[in-house]
Amino acid sequence: MIIVMKPGTAKDQVDHVVDRVTELGLQPHTIIGTERTVVALVGDERLVSRDLLESFPGVEKVVPILAPYKMASVEIHREPTTVAVDGFEFGGKRIGLIAGPCTVESRNMVIELAHEVKEAGAVALRGGAFKPRTSPYSFQGLAEEGLQYLAEAREATGLAVVTEVMASEQVDLVSRYADVLQIGARNMQNYDLLRAAGRQAKPVLLKRGLAATVDEWLLAAEYILKQGNPNVMLCERGVRTFEQHTRFTLSLSVVPQLKSLTHLPVLVDPSHGTGRRNLVEPMSRAAIACGADGLLIEVHDNPESAMLDGQQCITSQQFARLVESCRRVAEAVDREL
Amino acid sequence: MIIVMKPGTAKDQVDHVVDRVTELGLQPHTIIGTERTVVALVGDERLVSRDLLESFPGVEKVVPILAPYKMASVEIHREPTTVAVDGFEFGGKRIGLIAGPCTVESRNMVIELAHEVKEAGAVALRGGAFKPRTSPYSFQGLAEEGLQYLAEAREATGLAVVTEVMASEQVDLVSRYADVLQIGARNMQNYDLLRAAGRQAKPVLLKRGLAATVDEWLLAAEYILKQGNPNVMLCERGVRTFEQHTRFTLSLSVVPQLKSLTHLPVLVDPSHGTGRRNLVEPMSRAAIACGADGLLIEVHDNPESAMLDGQQCITSQQFARLVESCRRVAEAVDREL
Amino acid sequence: MIIVMKPGTAKDQVDHVVDRVTELGLQPHTIIGTERTVVALVGDERLVSRDLLESFPGVEKVVPILAPYKMASVEIHREPTTVAVDGFEFGGKRIGLIAGPCTVESRNMVIELAHEVKEAGAVALRGGAFKPRTSPYSFQGLAEEGLQYLAEAREATGLAVVTEVMASEQVDLVSRYADVLQIGARNMQNYDLLRAAGRQAKPVLLKRGLAATVDEWLLAAEYILKQGNPNVMLCERGVRTFEQHTRFTLSLSVVPQLKSLTHLPVLVDPSHGTGRRNLVEPMSRAAIACGADGLLIEVHDNPESAMLDGQQCITSQQFARLVESCRRVAEAVDREL
Amino acid sequence: MIIVMKPGTAKDQVDHVVDRVTELGLQPHTIIGTERTVVALVGDERLVSRDLLESFPGVEKVVPILAPYKMASVEIHREPTTVAVDGFEFGGKRIGLIAGPCTVESRNMVIELAHEVKEAGAVALRGGAFKPRTSPYSFQGLAEEGLQYLAEAREATGLAVVTEVMASEQVDLVSRYADVLQIGARNMQNYDLLRAAGRQAKPVLLKRGLAATVDEWLLAAEYILKQGNPNVMLCERGVRTFEQHTRFTLSLSVVPQLKSLTHLPVLVDPSHGTGRRNLVEPMSRAAIACGADGLLIEVHDNPESAMLDGQQCITSQQFARLVESCRRVAEAVDREL
Repeated sequence: MIIVMKPGTAKDQVDHVVDRVTELGLQPHTIIGTERTVVALVGDERLVSRDLLESFPGVEKVVPILAPYKMASVEIHREPTTVAVDGFEFGGKRIGLIAGPCTVESRNMVIELAHEVKEAGAVALRGGAFKPRTSPYSFQGLAEEGLQYLAEAREATGLAVVTEVMASEQVDLVSRYADVLQIGARNMQNYDLLRAAGRQAKPVLLKRGLAATVDEWLLAAEYILKQGNPNVMLCERGVRTFEQHTRFTLSLSVVPQLKSLTHLPVLVDPSHGTGRRNLVEPMSRAAIACGADGLLIEVHDNPESAMLDGQQCITSQQFARLVESCRRVAEAVDREL
Repeated sequence: MIIVMKPGTAKDQVDHVVDRVTELGLQPHTIIGTERTVVALVGDERLVSRDLLESFPGVEKVVPILAPYKMASVEIHREPTTVAVDGFEFGGKRIGLIAGPCTVESRNMVIELAHEVKEAGAVALRGGAFKPRTSPYSFQGLAEEGLQYLAEAREATGLAVVTEVMASEQVDLVSRYADVLQIGARNMQNYDLLRAAGRQAKPVLLKRGLAATVDEWLLAAEYILKQGNPNVMLCERGVRTFEQHTRFTLSLSVVPQLKSLTHLPVLVDPSHGTGRRNLVEPMSRAAIACGADGLLIEVHDNPESAMLDGQQCITSQQFARLVESCRRVAEAVDREL
Repeated sequence: MIIVMKPGTAKDQVDHVVDRVTELGLQPHTIIGTERTVVALVGDERLVSRDLLESFPGVEKVVPILAPYKMASVEIHREPTTVAVDGFEFGGKRIGLIAGPCTVESRNMVIELAHEVKEAGAVALRGGAFKPRTSPYSFQGLAEEGLQYLAEAREATGLAVVTEVMASEQVDLVSRYADVLQIGARNMQNYDLLRAAGRQAKPVLLKRGLAATVDEWLLAAEYILKQGNPNVMLCERGVRTFEQHTRFTLSLSVVPQLKSLTHLPVLVDPSHGTGRRNLVEPMSRAAIACGADGLLIEVHDNPESAMLDGQQCITSQQFARLVESCRRVAEAVDREL
Repeated sequence: MIIVMKPGTAKDQVDHVVDRVTELGLQPHTIIGTERTVVALVGDERLVSRDLLESFPGVEKVVPILAPYKMASVEIHREPTTVAVDGFEFGGKRIGLIAGPCTVESRNMVIELAHEVKEAGAVALRGGAFKPRTSPYSFQGLAEEGLQYLAEAREATGLAVVTEVMASEQVDLVSRYADVLQIGARNMQNYDLLRAAGRQAKPVLLKRGLAATVDEWLLAAEYILKQGNPNVMLCERGVRTFEQHTRFTLSLSVVPQLKSLTHLPVLVDPSHGTGRRNLVEPMSRAAIACGADGLLIEVHDNPESAMLDGQQCITSQQFARLVESCRRVAEAVDREL
């Protein structure tokens, strides 16, 4: 960490900073500049609160040098992590497609869709049983009944099941049915939920918060990892910006950037990330082209009767075409699909 | 709702839309324009999913006309709501100051601070026992022990206690000790928590999410109101934007805007909303000048040893000065403090 | 346009709106809803100011239905426009690479680089002679001398020259030397410059403003088209958001979205759009995968001595590898490079 | 500046950095940490390009310590600057109100309004003769004819004239008629215009760009100051964020923050900054409460016929009330109005 003192700081304030950081177990190096004095610290800066240092008299700002996460960092864990889901390895050479309805609406619907997306090339089925809805007047999901239908769809097709868990007290229930627990954007910093997901063994798909920085996202992953569950996958799903032509701004540059910072697999959700059906296929191709390890795609055979998010879901026919065009791009970047 | 059809839409697609919305209980009015056809709907549009309509063939976009919330709306509940906290009415003529440490660090510290902020003019004591922390390596709060110290501080000073609840399963515990349950920005869309807070009787202080729109925020309030708890207060605490000179961008125009949309009291947190000690007092004055019903201020007598957020907390001496300067502004806008 | 009246608006206010819009040449259709009255307008809404309508008594908001641009719209001009630059057709099947230094630093440097990027596969040379610099203390470019070196590089290699013009009074000078006039992000709404670029014949590469919406960007293009110059190319170069891991947020979903709205070619600048050297190649591939017609890439053989933007420029060796990997992706989406 | 090396950087790369920065005139101090090596530089870091340093092999990032502007900085020029406009001192104890129509529509209209805003308490008249319009189909202003009407209004009322200049070649013309040259948000980084405004003597009102950081804004001011014109006033007018309840997000915390960074007067434009008539008065009060030296307010007596921006302009009667309520707030913060 680098402590930048205010211009004209008295020597005793600098000395005070030096004494305090020494007590805290770091080695300070004072550099007296022409306009400012800075104190550079050697040691594990994660042990010291930046806020604390910034509250010392005479300190203008504190600049961290190290990343705040450890277990998620590629510096500590150099080999890419692969996450096994029912035999498929996310993070390996093959790109994994997870497809299905936004919400589980009925048994027939989910089983039929499962067959269709499997045939088209999906390795897992997505579908919400517990749904985080902006409005209390919206359909909130079928809850356990929905989980049962998902499990039946797995029986029928062999597809792994990915479904959202919204609260720590649902973790037990959802992990009995699901192969992968999804933590949604709105819950990325629900720390009780992160810890509960970290205490069980199923892989976790951690979506990026709507306004989360990369550091905050990797620290959320760190909450899970720290509880002993190493099987965390990250999923970019669009961030909130001033842009209005899409529902969110899909920030694909985060994919190669994460690949340089973390060993965890990185997926992309172009359905929620754009909120527009016509953008799902081109952005799926783009996600693969820049290194995504998997995609999460909303598919519904009758979008007109979809209970939710009709505007962004594609039909299983469109999904089959998407798979074909993505396969070609995957090969062009030496991956498989 | 207004349904805008794509240019050149076939008549049967328009007819299909008209038939479907009629089935859904709304009255359609078709208007054939020079370039586009639009279908205007009469009836309670909250009953129909915008997404559903957007998934009909030939539909380009759907424009809602009504606000999506009801119980929070000034159109349904015209009189301002006042929320009574231990005898003080938030939302009335007098502006309420809630002050205290970010985190409860020890019994002595919180009791001493409580005496000081009370003397300066606060009506309630804030302080975190459960702390949502970005990093799992940061101090996570004293939990129930912290709640006990807060309750002792209330005994000693008569100040009401405002403290954060982070998960639905903590609601019972926290509401045993607290006078107001605070729901933080990261949990604004934690729907289980919102529902749990709505099922108990204590007032709820609902902070705005980091990237929440006004509609999303009022819908979060609606989750609480819908469970039967009418005592909801809203608190602006800064949103995330490209700006870097402050930690967040305190969006004060939301205060008078909320006053025109909702009957609920509106508070402002200039400490978290700016993240900089030197901005707390001027932004407190500004918040009052544009109509805030209360302020949430971080105060710590030894910011240098504050376990968290040292950079934004002010001393109780600075708080006393802030109260004096805010009182003058309050009077200038015909309020009291 | 749809005019939404406030709840409880008096009939005479609605009548007033109806009269006024009739005078303005539009046909009003009044729809009396359960909670609100709306007035739908038939006719060319571009002729009427939305602001004017919003100022009528009783009006709550005005919702435009049509896009505000015409000549740039795919609805008016259905065939894709191709822009010929020295024999190469931007917007056709082949993807065009424009590469070169951020700034022209010397004759030798630019000629040498021109040879290298040409050999690797570029069809045009980029390089700044006039540079918009955030700080007045930064190097501002070689001005006309730089233009001469670019022209010499064209002589030597046959590459077309793309260079920035920063003010309307520079248009004559720059168009004497350049094959394509680039208008930078900071000048996207410099209307005098747009008009001047529209009055001359050379193609214009119009970069997106840092915080420009798609409508604003297409309206800026409309300023050029309206003056009689049909050869406009759009270039996404990143927008400003809360994200800090890249210098800007490259918003690739704008590429397929623009393809559905406009007939103009769409390029992407992954160098400025990310500001990080390691992201240039993956985001180049992603841009092509989602439909970009060309790329603008910063190349410099000795980034260490680059006068500007050293952090985002790649070497000509890295550029050659980028071309190879992009070519494979181009083929996977049925394009050439 | 602090240069942070990548983990595991070879010693010769560190030596290379040390040698190069020494050549560039700075003194390097190497600090070998447990995980990283950093090189702290002593000397005037503004002389060295951050981008250049970031391009050195082995460098991960470069952290600047000093502000990039000089003449605008309170560290170099400690006394507040007051800008005299026709006898009134902006930046002094008295707060200056600049009011008038968005656009000059006719001689009568502007003279009448000038009388009204003067009577209410304005010290200067605003009004656009050259208008930057998003769409080429919108009214672009009366140009020199509009300037003449403004000059006549000054004759008639004694109010100073504040009007926008959009291009460097208009500077001569506009400065013949105006008392203050306004540079709009879209032109904040039009460097030719900034330089031209710096070469003449009239005060300049520099609005903040829609997505400009504080550093970029102060560097834009620096362009003007550096040409010899010390009379620069800054004006916050809202930034672009995800928020949709207002047209822009008025970021008032920038006011006290600028006061701690620069000696230049700081104004606020709550009309453009919110885009909503009902927010103009409360946000005017808030601006004064947090330290603004002046306000820019759009006033129009018949907003219904306003050619532009009808939704945000208030009547002169409303303006008179605004002045009264702002005067009380001004007194509460020991200012006058």
